[in-house]
Amino acid sequence: MNRTTIETGRGKIRWARANMRLHQQIAVRFREERPLANQRIGMSLHLEAKTAVLAQTLCEGGASLYVIESNPLATQDDVAAALAETEGITVNARRGVSVEEHLEHIDALLDQRPTLIVEDGGEVIERIVKRGIDRFPSLVGLSEETTTGVEHLLRLQQAGRLPIPAIAVNSARMKHLIDNRYGTGQSTWDAILRGTNLLIAGKTVLIIGYGWCGRGLAMRAVGLGARVMVVDTDEVKEVEALMEGHEPVSLAEGMRRADVVITATGQPRVVGREMLALAKNGVLLANAGHFGFEIDVPALNDMAIRNEVSRDGVRAFEIADGRTLYLLGEGELVNLSVGDGHPIEIMDISFALQTLSQEYLALHHAALSPEVHAVPDEIERHVARMVLASWTQHR
Amino acid sequence: MNRTTIETGRGKIRWARANMRLHQQIAVRFREERPLANQRIGMSLHLEAKTAVLAQTLCEGGASLYVIESNPLATQDDVAAALAETEGITVNARRGVSVEEHLEHIDALLDQRPTLIVEDGGEVIERIVKRGIDRFPSLVGLSEETTTGVEHLLRLQQAGRLPIPAIAVNSARMKHLIDNRYGTGQSTWDAILRGTNLLIAGKTVLIIGYGWCGRGLAMRAVGLGARVMVVDTDEVKEVEALMEGHEPVSLAEGMRRADVVITATGQPRVVGREMLALAKNGVLLANAGHFGFEIDVPALNDMAIRNEVSRDGVRAFEIADGRTLYLLGEGELVNLSVGDGHPIEIMDISFALQTLSQEYLALHHAALSPEVHAVPDEIERHVARMVLASWTQHR
Amino acid sequence: MNRTTIETGRGKIRWARANMRLHQQIAVRFREERPLANQRIGMSLHLEAKTAVLAQTLCEGGASLYVIESNPLATQDDVAAALAETEGITVNARRGVSVEEHLEHIDALLDQRPTLIVEDGGEVIERIVKRGIDRFPSLVGLSEETTTGVEHLLRLQQAGRLPIPAIAVNSARMKHLIDNRYGTGQSTWDAILRGTNLLIAGKTVLIIGYGWCGRGLAMRAVGLGARVMVVDTDEVKEVEALMEGHEPVSLAEGMRRADVVITATGQPRVVGREMLALAKNGVLLANAGHFGFEIDVPALNDMAIRNEVSRDGVRAFEIADGRTLYLLGEGELVNLSVGDGHPIEIMDISFALQTLSQEYLALHHAALSPEVHAVPDEIERHVARMVLASWTQHR
Amino acid sequence: MNRTTIETGRGKIRWARANMRLHQQIAVRFREERPLANQRIGMSLHLEAKTAVLAQTLCEGGASLYVIESNPLATQDDVAAALAETEGITVNARRGVSVEEHLEHIDALLDQRPTLIVEDGGEVIERIVKRGIDRFPSLVGLSEETTTGVEHLLRLQQAGRLPIPAIAVNSARMKHLIDNRYGTGQSTWDAILRGTNLLIAGKTVLIIGYGWCGRGLAMRAVGLGARVMVVDTDEVKEVEALMEGHEPVSLAEGMRRADVVITATGQPRVVGREMLALAKNGVLLANAGHFGFEIDVPALNDMAIRNEVSRDGVRAFEIADGRTLYLLGEGELVNLSVGDGHPIEIMDISFALQTLSQEYLALHHAALSPEVHAVPDEIERHVARMVLASWTQHR
Repeated sequence: MNRTTIETGRGKIRWARANMRLHQQIAVRFREERPLANQRIGMSLHLEAKTAVLAQTLCEGGASLYVIESNPLATQDDVAAALAETEGITVNARRGVSVEEHLEHIDALLDQRPTLIVEDGGEVIERIVKRGIDRFPSLVGLSEETTTGVEHLLRLQQAGRLPIPAIAVNSARMKHLIDNRYGTGQSTWDAILRGTNLLIAGKTVLIIGYGWCGRGLAMRAVGLGARVMVVDTDEVKEVEALMEGHEPVSLAEGMRRADVVITATGQPRVVGREMLALAKNGVLLANAGHFGFEIDVPALNDMAIRNEVSRDGVRAFEIADGRTLYLLGEGELVNLSVGDGHPIEIMDISFALQTLSQEYLALHHAALSPEVHAVPDEIERHVARMVLASWTQHR
Repeated sequence: MNRTTIETGRGKIRWARANMRLHQQIAVRFREERPLANQRIGMSLHLEAKTAVLAQTLCEGGASLYVIESNPLATQDDVAAALAETEGITVNARRGVSVEEHLEHIDALLDQRPTLIVEDGGEVIERIVKRGIDRFPSLVGLSEETTTGVEHLLRLQQAGRLPIPAIAVNSARMKHLIDNRYGTGQSTWDAILRGTNLLIAGKTVLIIGYGWCGRGLAMRAVGLGARVMVVDTDEVKEVEALMEGHEPVSLAEGMRRADVVITATGQPRVVGREMLALAKNGVLLANAGHFGFEIDVPALNDMAIRNEVSRDGVRAFEIADGRTLYLLGEGELVNLSVGDGHPIEIMDISFALQTLSQEYLALHHAALSPEVHAVPDEIERHVARMVLASWTQHR
Repeated sequence: MNRTTIETGRGKIRWARANMRLHQQIAVRFREERPLANQRIGMSLHLEAKTAVLAQTLCEGGASLYVIESNPLATQDDVAAALAETEGITVNARRGVSVEEHLEHIDALLDQRPTLIVEDGGEVIERIVKRGIDRFPSLVGLSEETTTGVEHLLRLQQAGRLPIPAIAVNSARMKHLIDNRYGTGQSTWDAILRGTNLLIAGKTVLIIGYGWCGRGLAMRAVGLGARVMVVDTDEVKEVEALMEGHEPVSLAEGMRRADVVITATGQPRVVGREMLALAKNGVLLANAGHFGFEIDVPALNDMAIRNEVSRDGVRAFEIADGRTLYLLGEGELVNLSVGDGHPIEIMDISFALQTLSQEYLALHHAALSPEVHAVPDEIERHVARMVLASWTQHR
Repeated sequence: MNRTTIETGRGKIRWARANMRLHQQIAVRFREERPLANQRIGMSLHLEAKTAVLAQTLCEGGASLYVIESNPLATQDDVAAALAETEGITVNARRGVSVEEHLEHIDALLDQRPTLIVEDGGEVIERIVKRGIDRFPSLVGLSEETTTGVEHLLRLQQAGRLPIPAIAVNSARMKHLIDNRYGTGQSTWDAILRGTNLLIAGKTVLIIGYGWCGRGLAMRAVGLGARVMVVDTDEVKEVEALMEGHEPVSLAEGMRRADVVITATGQPRVVGREMLALAKNGVLLANAGHFGFEIDVPALNDMAIRNEVSRDGVRAFEIADGRTLYLLGEGELVNLSVGDGHPIEIMDISFALQTLSQEYLALHHAALSPEVHAVPDEIERHVARMVLASWTQHR
């Protein structure tokens, strides 16, 4: 890794750290109390600047860390290089590893005999279960970042196979109420604006799915001057949308009238061939849901006589009937594929739940059954209080 | 110019054109009616994709064009190269020309014996007056894009020296009511989001100057979940801000409490040393006014013990007292220096006023006195009707 | 009851009916299907126009009704008189009955050997349990409107004493998500506006309690141009308020700065003597929670050297220190004590859940255990679909 | 006048005074400086509580006042009686005077040889001109409250017949920007809510006329959860509405889709027979413009087979085709006919301009030509500063 790249990585971490005020506070206490002294933490997360601050904070609490990528594409190499400079942190992550290399990294992580795991997606716990918990006697707990990972843990628990206590960070209110609504709401529109340079005021926006993400998307659309149509399979949510000043519509009606369509349902092919046939010429199509399958990109490809990149992050599909449909970020989660992902403060909140859950596991694992546990209420409220204090007072 | 660069330029023009629906409509009529047949138009504007669409549309109306840069840095070379491929358009513009070369370009433009001028800033009319109108007998009219240029025209008129009829596009309601409020409002926040990756919800924002730009900035700040403080030298405007739900404050009070400060006053050093001394640690400072002098950058430099680029478009100034202040876009107009400038549709509207003013000059110059004229009301309303039609119906 | 009074009552019912479009639709089907044929329904509710429409609709479904007041003050006599004209409905309700008379009414209702009960508050079921279910062999089910009543039913169930199946209407999402947020939100501000004739724009409003009611109150305050401060004992909710653009404050800080204070906590004496001592001169104090004890009125009386009615629904308390505090609606639920209660459409929704729950009990009681049941999901969604249909299409 | 009535009047004045904080401040200074000493002010205004506070404040500045009604119906007798108790104020006003009596009152006022006039509508100046200025040598100035009156003054000026300096209070920014937008915006919705007890959230509202009143109406409709359609004869304003998130429509389209229609155009029969034929069953029709002719009530009467009062302030028109249309406040200005008119603070601002204009005339009349003058800029800004001070600080 050359000097320039490392310097870029250092700059990214510095900017994230400067704006992660909860972690700044936690770090001050951690340096004094060292609650993670003697802990060896294995971390498998999307490795970018905000994650690096999480790692450094855990390290400041006394832990040594071994950090790998959570999937083959989930690493920014400059950040990885800069993070590796931190004493006490070993980084074994690289963008574009093969699936085999990634599995080797998991095994390498486990070979460090970690006491705690922080992970995203459930692959590490899967590997532990496969290899047998007896081989990892030092391991006392785990915290999981995502919905997918939590569902995996619950399946293990129901099958009677979960070997250690696990904290489901994703289920905390401070995670899903805040992250999904205000994180996705802002960052999706940020990505659309920078991807297109188009005006939102006066446009008609269709939000498909009115869960917490959908609410955030609708709220910020109104904030930019758009009129919002909403569709959800749950009619009660559609009534809520109505009362918020949005217009509930059928999917077909919405597709016919929308200038911008955003999916946030978690379901595959919600915008499929039939719906794409109804879309207006010039429509923008974006996905804000976790998986890249909500907009049926294969169908789009099939319908198009030609496609080309119009702008970074925008692909134009010319349809035989003369319409052009614009797909943002290739149909992947648009705030990550076209923008910079969640705002830094949102990750500061989510990762503060992680940091304090790791501390909790370190201190209380002996009293915890090998089940999936909620983030303790006192941790949630402590994080909430830190947010209130740092947001509403002079820095 | 190599093929790749030209292709990039073509792509930019294509994207702009696809989203400039007013110009699409005007072009259809122009190709049929050819109202600008035999006109030779000299154009001196900031040369980027939206301007290229304006030039092509005028060309489709029958005119031949000679295009130069409006100032030494105001050219995107890839767009210039792609535009030069259009038959009937000669481009003599390059990024980074010297002041001498720029003057040579103006003279070269005038040597084409233009019949009409479109310009931004007043340098061409200045040169015409200097060289004498008698040398340009074919010239019958001019339209001007900016406030600065219009003020220059008015000074010439008052001095009895304005030799030809000139249309003040900037003064039209469809320009200043729309462009300043909704264009600046959105694009400034777009730039701040992409420049910082920070969360706006829950933040306290200070808007300095509550003119049309300031109103747009405040409106969109609320739309992103911020609380807004406003300061203006006109107390009546502060009362309006109060009634809109914002908090009027003194400048000092606002500086003490703001997480984000945005200037839009047109006045120099509004945020000067004394005010910078009050700013919170971690504040973001951005300028949305035309000139880069509203935030006193020399004072910042002077106060800082160190400064460095934190992220593209963000410079951190470390002050001796331990605070760090972040300046966006070096204090220049933030939507241009960090973002992509006004949304495409906003320029579509502004340039439609230009296009139709050029047509008006071509058809009616004989009846017009050599004075500064407003954009005819029928043109404004025609543009408004086109906006309503293209925005509210299926494309 | 003289003719004029009956006519007034008829007019009120007509207006309510004209605007209860869900009940209009249900009535059409009920007249055809007669799902409540042979049912004798005992109804104990706050008897005003919207309740009369509920009663008439059940009657149109084939039931005969016996209607009493739900508490001594809960009857509008003109509406009672007009309702009594309906064939199949017996009304035994009067404003200002004594507690003894009210109990006699309950017994009279039970003496009708009802098959179903609709009630508000739990007094009828209490009486049934006391007298013994064996005496009422025809009784097969009950639906309950309020939180208080549902809590009572749950206590009976836990004690193993609930003798019949009971549907908890209050717990439905279509009740608490809609009624509390949009019903309370609008009707509270309606009452404050008509009670005071004061301007809300530019004012600072303190919302105490950020549950569903508090969210509705905050949302509509912003909609009227106010700035909103929020306090809640749950810090996670305060973070949500922050992200919505409100300002979380301590109670004391909020009391010091508020022009309007609204309570919605369900807790007694939230605004007690200590907080009243901090309030600004001229503050408006209103309660939007169910019980009249949130603002400590005895303390106010004690602190005041004089009090008098300033306007209908507004009492001025002059404090010895020179401040005057204004209490709306004597501290009782302000939308009922100063306004007309919930908007008609809100009660249309809530009572549609009642109507369809009664039908459900009539048809399915045999399959239901003597427990507290949720409103069946298909009823909720059916009501939601009716709302969507009647709100979004031409009437 | 009996004691009870006087006491009611006193209560109304007390409530107004308690909430007219600008007048409280002005009164403090007036009692000390007595700038109106020796002035005899003739006042002809709509006589209700807020006007009484204006009168008392002028009196505290040293003037004696003679107060009459500005038109036969413009007097609240209880307020008149209570005002008459003030030393220095003579009241000669009564509700329901005949036109002849009203003229006698004007003459009686003039017979007091006033030095200054405050009026609403221009009848007093008309009478002065008719009788001849020579008969009123003590008269030095006048201030006028309304648009109608100002237009009358301008006609007199153009005809060379305006005999004294007159200040056009209505033209001040603090009057039309504030009063029309925030006063009309809130008070119209207040009237609609109290008149109907209907829910606004989820409804579709048509605003006809997008001037300052229309903007206020649209803003507050959104604030209550409605979706807003806008129509204006000026397409540029329609584009502004679009960019604000409203939907510009044709009048016919709007009439077909609206649940609530509000006129604010100043033009007669904007909602005429043809448009009424398109309205939805159950629509609410309200007028927020000054004159009661915007909704064609005669046409409604003609189309209806029956009409009746549904609720105080709501008349139902049954049309032969089965639709029922609801007219609020008989088509008159709805905030006055169904509600309490402008919020108190709005009149505090407007009347502060009056009070200070009277002071200005008293002090500077000698330097003023007999023309229509604007409210001096320093008075506007002084009033704005008082608003800012009293709204944003502890009372």
